[in-house]
Amino acid sequence: MRFVVASDHAGKKVKDKFLRVLEDLGVEFEDLSPKNSSGDDYPDFAGLVARKVGEDFGFLACGTGIGISIAANRHKNVRAALAYNSDDARMSRAHNNANVLVLSGSKEFSEEDIKGIVVEFLETKFEGGRHKRRVDKLS
Amino acid sequence: MRFVVASDHAGKKVKDKFLRVLEDLGVEFEDLSPKNSSGDDYPDFAGLVARKVGEDFGFLACGTGIGISIAANRHKNVRAALAYNSDDARMSRAHNNANVLVLSGSKEFSEEDIKGIVVEFLETKFEGGRHKRRVDKLS
Repeated sequence: MRFVVASDHAGKKVKDKFLRVLEDLGVEFEDLSPKNSSGDDYPDFAGLVARKVGEDFGFLACGTGIGISIAANRHKNVRAALAYNSDDARMSRAHNNANVLVLSGSKEFSEEDIKGIVVEFLETKFEGGRHKRRVDKLS
Repeated sequence: MRFVVASDHAGKKVKDKFLRVLEDLGVEFEDLSPKNSSGDDYPDFAGLVARKVGEDFGFLACGTGIGISIAANRHKNVRAALAYNSDDARMSRAHNNANVLVLSGSKEFSEEDIKGIVVEFLETKFEGGRHKRRVDKLS
């Protein structure tokens, strides 16, 4: 599984940490963030990632993670999970079949924290069953 | 401002704390959660709240807050903020014009934590300007 990645200016720092973690783990990614960081609107970046999510997972970040989560979840093919720890990441895969991971740029995540989150997101399978009935109601 | 409120079984405990905080603050609410807590699907509860959000704020909770946030943000009139602290609540109002507050049922929020979150959510005004341009792109 590869990640397609974007962040606005306020999410850049956590996105850069996330990319270093992917490199450590040997996970491929494509960074869609514009090089020019001024005047960037988080709904545009959510849209860039939403167009590629399906075969790939997505990753998004903004200041709180909230704006870019709202924007991402406007897209019916996206189930974007704003995760604060590895338990959130695991549950979002197991119960919500999340396909986009979102982190807040304003929380102080270490690379070790992020590694724990990413590993759970990548390794946890969707449980299906009653959770499938609920996920089906999202689309 | 009044709150329309719902949670699934896994969000019930934090919802009950949230309602006690509203009572303390003298804030009105309507609890739309079904009495029968078995077999409840979070997308249904997000839909119940989404239909009433506009004049009222909304409040939602599920196990992580992630599933019900995805479901709520499928509705174009909703901007649902999964908040972990009062800074998130403040920023979600100031920058995202959030109209639904979401809490995770699996985090250990005290009533004092929740009071801080609610007060920021109620008292912070949307800043408009460049944030309005971004919020307009969500609908």
